[in-house]
Amino acid sequence: MSGNTFGKLFRLTTFGESHGPGLGGVIDGCPAGIPLTEADIQVELDRRKPGTGGIAATARREDDAVHLHSGVFEGRTTGTPIGFFIANQDMRSRDYSAIKDVWRPGHADRTYDAKFGFRDYRGGGRSSGRETVSRVAGGAVAAAFLATRGVSVLAYPVEVGGVPARVIDPENAHARPFFSPDEAAVAAFEERCRQARAAGDTVGGVVEVRARGVPAGLGEPVFDKLDARLAYALMGIGAVKGVEIGAGFSAARATGATNNDPMTLDGFASNNAGGILGGISSGQEIVVRCAVKPIPSIGQPQRTMTRQGEETEITVGGRHDVCAIPRIVPVCKAMVLLVLADMWLLDRRLGGECPRN
Amino acid sequence: MSGNTFGKLFRLTTFGESHGPGLGGVIDGCPAGIPLTEADIQVELDRRKPGTGGIAATARREDDAVHLHSGVFEGRTTGTPIGFFIANQDMRSRDYSAIKDVWRPGHADRTYDAKFGFRDYRGGGRSSGRETVSRVAGGAVAAAFLATRGVSVLAYPVEVGGVPARVIDPENAHARPFFSPDEAAVAAFEERCRQARAAGDTVGGVVEVRARGVPAGLGEPVFDKLDARLAYALMGIGAVKGVEIGAGFSAARATGATNNDPMTLDGFASNNAGGILGGISSGQEIVVRCAVKPIPSIGQPQRTMTRQGEETEITVGGRHDVCAIPRIVPVCKAMVLLVLADMWLLDRRLGGECPRN
Amino acid sequence: MSGNTFGKLFRLTTFGESHGPGLGGVIDGCPAGIPLTEADIQVELDRRKPGTGGIAATARREDDAVHLHSGVFEGRTTGTPIGFFIANQDMRSRDYSAIKDVWRPGHADRTYDAKFGFRDYRGGGRSSGRETVSRVAGGAVAAAFLATRGVSVLAYPVEVGGVPARVIDPENAHARPFFSPDEAAVAAFEERCRQARAAGDTVGGVVEVRARGVPAGLGEPVFDKLDARLAYALMGIGAVKGVEIGAGFSAARATGATNNDPMTLDGFASNNAGGILGGISSGQEIVVRCAVKPIPSIGQPQRTMTRQGEETEITVGGRHDVCAIPRIVPVCKAMVLLVLADMWLLDRRLGGECPRN
Amino acid sequence: MSGNTFGKLFRLTTFGESHGPGLGGVIDGCPAGIPLTEADIQVELDRRKPGTGGIAATARREDDAVHLHSGVFEGRTTGTPIGFFIANQDMRSRDYSAIKDVWRPGHADRTYDAKFGFRDYRGGGRSSGRETVSRVAGGAVAAAFLATRGVSVLAYPVEVGGVPARVIDPENAHARPFFSPDEAAVAAFEERCRQARAAGDTVGGVVEVRARGVPAGLGEPVFDKLDARLAYALMGIGAVKGVEIGAGFSAARATGATNNDPMTLDGFASNNAGGILGGISSGQEIVVRCAVKPIPSIGQPQRTMTRQGEETEITVGGRHDVCAIPRIVPVCKAMVLLVLADMWLLDRRLGGECPRN
Repeated sequence: MSGNTFGKLFRLTTFGESHGPGLGGVIDGCPAGIPLTEADIQVELDRRKPGTGGIAATARREDDAVHLHSGVFEGRTTGTPIGFFIANQDMRSRDYSAIKDVWRPGHADRTYDAKFGFRDYRGGGRSSGRETVSRVAGGAVAAAFLATRGVSVLAYPVEVGGVPARVIDPENAHARPFFSPDEAAVAAFEERCRQARAAGDTVGGVVEVRARGVPAGLGEPVFDKLDARLAYALMGIGAVKGVEIGAGFSAARATGATNNDPMTLDGFASNNAGGILGGISSGQEIVVRCAVKPIPSIGQPQRTMTRQGEETEITVGGRHDVCAIPRIVPVCKAMVLLVLADMWLLDRRLGGECPRN
Repeated sequence: MSGNTFGKLFRLTTFGESHGPGLGGVIDGCPAGIPLTEADIQVELDRRKPGTGGIAATARREDDAVHLHSGVFEGRTTGTPIGFFIANQDMRSRDYSAIKDVWRPGHADRTYDAKFGFRDYRGGGRSSGRETVSRVAGGAVAAAFLATRGVSVLAYPVEVGGVPARVIDPENAHARPFFSPDEAAVAAFEERCRQARAAGDTVGGVVEVRARGVPAGLGEPVFDKLDARLAYALMGIGAVKGVEIGAGFSAARATGATNNDPMTLDGFASNNAGGILGGISSGQEIVVRCAVKPIPSIGQPQRTMTRQGEETEITVGGRHDVCAIPRIVPVCKAMVLLVLADMWLLDRRLGGECPRN
Repeated sequence: MSGNTFGKLFRLTTFGESHGPGLGGVIDGCPAGIPLTEADIQVELDRRKPGTGGIAATARREDDAVHLHSGVFEGRTTGTPIGFFIANQDMRSRDYSAIKDVWRPGHADRTYDAKFGFRDYRGGGRSSGRETVSRVAGGAVAAAFLATRGVSVLAYPVEVGGVPARVIDPENAHARPFFSPDEAAVAAFEERCRQARAAGDTVGGVVEVRARGVPAGLGEPVFDKLDARLAYALMGIGAVKGVEIGAGFSAARATGATNNDPMTLDGFASNNAGGILGGISSGQEIVVRCAVKPIPSIGQPQRTMTRQGEETEITVGGRHDVCAIPRIVPVCKAMVLLVLADMWLLDRRLGGECPRN
Repeated sequence: MSGNTFGKLFRLTTFGESHGPGLGGVIDGCPAGIPLTEADIQVELDRRKPGTGGIAATARREDDAVHLHSGVFEGRTTGTPIGFFIANQDMRSRDYSAIKDVWRPGHADRTYDAKFGFRDYRGGGRSSGRETVSRVAGGAVAAAFLATRGVSVLAYPVEVGGVPARVIDPENAHARPFFSPDEAAVAAFEERCRQARAAGDTVGGVVEVRARGVPAGLGEPVFDKLDARLAYALMGIGAVKGVEIGAGFSAARATGATNNDPMTLDGFASNNAGGILGGISSGQEIVVRCAVKPIPSIGQPQRTMTRQGEETEITVGGRHDVCAIPRIVPVCKAMVLLVLADMWLLDRRLGGECPRN
């Protein structure tokens, strides 16, 4: 397996399984002089913790305490790589040993066996959602860098289990269950999850991420477009099956006259482009959405196969969430932050100069 | 600008503007011993040529004759880089000089100015759709390599200007106007384009790409998932605003019980996953769709700005297509081929070993 | 700072400062199924520990206990990234605070200030020789992989402080002081170091690395030649100022007739090429040497500057080695192992297929 | 074969064989607004042409006329990739067909067969010295960029066939036979080459490259040090077997007291470090040397093998140089320029911002 490093100049490399000693990573390329503490990272990790999602989440305890191993001196980054580690607190292997030789539908069990010949069957190893804690930690460092450049990122669901939410107050989404952008939608989200749980089923949703303060000029034309990098970043999250920028798929049904964003002295008159033209940021808000599939671990019996090639039936036990949204929102936010930090440093003009002392 | 190289082991690097001497590129990493001729590449280039789209396309002539400059000896690849060049035949700069200082809505004019400070204003330079000829050439080489491994790729629209097509006969799509997967849909596509042209307007659509014969095990977990690479590849095409794998956005409204693909002795019972689980190919067909926005160059007047910061109105003259679908289908196909060739070589087990003589 | 990741497919990313919590890294791309334990890594780390060098080394204690954080399950690699950490045991900042604002001659103090604006002045941060523990750990994993392919690597000095050693018994060099390839040379090496210490001075040397069992075909032509990658790997070690392959600089004084290696039924009749032709391994032993400069921290007063731009004089206190050879030999070995593991996976034909179970 | 792209941000990708249609490449990442014409590149190409070396060179004619295919508009770079092509003028395959199945000693014939299974046997394909024309073209573009930053590079031999030259007037070396830094050495170089030719033999030499105007701060610590990148760049040239920085191998015999470069108000008192400390430029002149082996094609009979595994004898016919120095000096210069341009863009602080209009 390669592919555990993200970014070209602002780089995150991650490691760790859900049932090993812990997870962590290295952020390489963060400019020197950026104010950074463990607390800046911990606040983001706490947001993806189980329980955040209320009804949507499980009883499982994960105490994700991050430890910085390098790269910070006297409260600021030194420009050297930032190593971090998050120990696994709670790993009950017995919950999983039963499925050692059975491929769970919707999971990566079968494909990991096909690729690697054998795997750590305890909770999915690298294909576990737990892998994302390292992404969130990396995103928090990217946020610290981008904050010194005036860039901020918001993330929230616009849909949970088919129930839509209006984007009324995204600024305070982080404080609400489901990170809902609309106070009124919370109850409906919870009701939808209650139904699913009662049926031993699970639901998905759609997450939207907005980036503010992004100057015009970010992104490299042709293959390495800003939107291409965002799509790569978000589709690389386990449960994501679709990504769209601005008007996205609805643009495919629009016409040029209705889809183009006219320019005026006050800036663009609309934002169907989602803040990106020709793969380069236009100075508008960056708007990207991703489709999150329902969690594959359900309480109902499912037809599947064993590693030995026999048909069987499986009812996935263990403690599982009904809806991934509350845990995936901070991950989507982190991935967008990582892309923006990297594209910032890649940009010739912006260069990523850092404060001096 | 960096970002003009695609892939890690099977790599395509491209260059060229719509109004310079020509376009071309280098394919680096293609294994030795693969049968390859200029004709193999020419056939794909001819498919993206104007005219292919009938009513959808313009009268513009592009005679895209490809020349191989290296890497092939006695009809087979030598394992050395394959350089190719396609001269520009028809470049009437005067068509474009009028817009030298005016930013066309929906185009990259404004963002290129923001990034590079100045630009080749004749037809958009690297942001021109013409840039994609090099992608198609690279994809043809990837196809030649993958053919020796039993992998083939199909591409066709499932929707044009809001008009859907059923996927009845995708195998012969390449022979139909619009690359339609359904003979019956051609007339409806053409009618939709006629309406748009009459209104001085343009339309978009949705393109689907299928890959057959892909073995289980392709793709690198975490950041470099097969679906992440596909999203990166397709979103990097100028007009694409959305990408989805398998059930895609509809998966966000499904439940775990309905979205999971059960496994049986006969293989998977459904393919909502689009042939990818945990970022790794499952052995099923790979299915990916992308949303193509309507062409931004329209015959109607639009509000915009000049480089000097004054408001103005622009009616984009010149000879433009009504619908990008006929030209973008071969590009989508090429990008998927490039991803698969690269992931094939990246895979530990498959290794990309090549025939010997 | 970027540049903390080494390799393209078999990748080592490192972090850590000499006076932070510790050092570590991530090995990404090691094939699945390779037998690996912490002990395999610990044995190499113990070899670079102070004390190993006897007279050449300092009294400083470094108890480099490695902890594997991921990527190994039931005694074998899983194909997922291998995270490791080595805590710093002994960091007396007071030894260094005196030089906070003074640039030590021969050290990176001045250049780090120029690049990053500020630095962790305690022991040189990333420019400290301590950084190399992560390289040695990474090299041990590469060795475990290459052992399954029949490749082994030896390293030893051929010269210390101008005193030459004959390469009589390199197989047992690891068991001798200075990793000497010749029992008889140890006393001379020690005497040379004793003289230097008495003079408050330091010495350097020349390290030779040999790789056995490397099949013909490793290395990528043009920029990414096997010898180019070896030169990059070894010159990237702090104290190294020169690298040569096979006959090296003496080849510049030879003629074609004397430098060419004739081929016979028994293989090559000589090895002036050092086992590499056109950047590709020939199947002979790979032979590479590097020049190690004397340790810059000396007991004599030296003229230098302060960060504030004033001339001053410095006598570097602290506990320093007289000769870097005993500590750098395992590092040179590790870097060659990392190059070979990466080139192995990069090679089309070898592919790096891994054992199955 | 991968490995035909050099650099991370200022990237050169090359293609082409000595006996195909021609050679060329793509420079990706050159900032916009840099003055550049074909003539800027042609002057460097003309310097590596046969004939330049006088007595050292062959009668072979190579008319290396470069054509720019993209990336330049109105006399300046646009920030888009710069494609270039150099057609092969003179390729007499018959000169080479005799050696189709015989491995030439000192050449890459055997290793290419081992790696690729088959090869373009006409003149060595990618392993031919002819491949370097693309490097020289790329270096000329790097020089144009660096000139806008006040950086210049000189290259010249300090030794030819064992005959040393004093570095008296390196500024005018480009105007002398052998690019000699000393007018007086030219006759001795020529006499040495005459002797070698008379004996049907060949000679090598040592090339020194100096970079002036490089600010302090270039280079990325740990693996991607400036000296590591220089070693990679120069060792990647076919005939180079050794690279050293500053005092190089002689530093291995010096002591800390004599090797350290004291710092004074007037700067460094010496330059044993070759302008690099801890992998980062110190603001002094960068000084690097490389060992060039004698040309392996000699007029004397040599023992070798056939592809079919039989012993044989070969006397390489054709028109060959006696000494590679006159042709390799511009290549060494080009590689150093490419490294500096790339490290410049990689540097956080310098950023590579480009002129605006």
